[in-house]
Amino acid sequence: MAATDSLSLVFAALADPTRRAILSKLSRGPATVGEVAEPFAVSAPAISQHLKVLERAGLVSRTARAQWRTLSLEAEPFDEASAWVEKHRREWNLRLDALDAHLQTMKDRSDTPDSKEAGS
Amino acid sequence: MAATDSLSLVFAALADPTRRAILSKLSRGPATVGEVAEPFAVSAPAISQHLKVLERAGLVSRTARAQWRTLSLEAEPFDEASAWVEKHRREWNLRLDALDAHLQTMKDRSDTPDSKEAGS
Repeated sequence: MAATDSLSLVFAALADPTRRAILSKLSRGPATVGEVAEPFAVSAPAISQHLKVLERAGLVSRTARAQWRTLSLEAEPFDEASAWVEKHRREWNLRLDALDAHLQTMKDRSDTPDSKEAGS
Repeated sequence: MAATDSLSLVFAALADPTRRAILSKLSRGPATVGEVAEPFAVSAPAISQHLKVLERAGLVSRTARAQWRTLSLEAEPFDEASAWVEKHRREWNLRLDALDAHLQTMKDRSDTPDSKEAGS
């Protein structure tokens, strides 16, 4: 039922406060699974499930370094999500600007008497 | 199970290509439910369900105008989602910049022979 295109996976991954907090932590640098899990009062399997969702969306990658598996943030899916949101913000703002201009025109018309009346 | 905070509702609403297409259409101006549903090969109940998700997230509002119910895009949740994504993009880019600078320093050090060798 849930969409599986890349942008949908990114937005779905962002739709949870624990996952967003994990991304916030990783945006300050790579960390181990233990370091990522530490601030949360949730079980290890729950964290593991959140990490799977983030990895599936491509937002987080794992690298095995020495004995530790390190988690890192990936920038590319953020760019895609950001581009989508920004495009719609922009289009919507253009529409609001056009509406403002239209209302201003209507206001100017009602302020200025038409030429026939002005000429009398 | 799904998170119900406002930002999570917005991201969850964006996590579907049909819902994003509905928002794209509404970003070009208000429309009726029929106009919104028209391009999609999905049932009326499916569209109605998508609209409920968008309304719950505050991304779309309905106004009854004459006999028609009109759908409009709401800008505010976009701003919140955009701010979150941008903040993380920015933090991540700062980190990448710092990494770049660090690698450059290491490269400069390996390019420049140390003072003892340079003095010989």
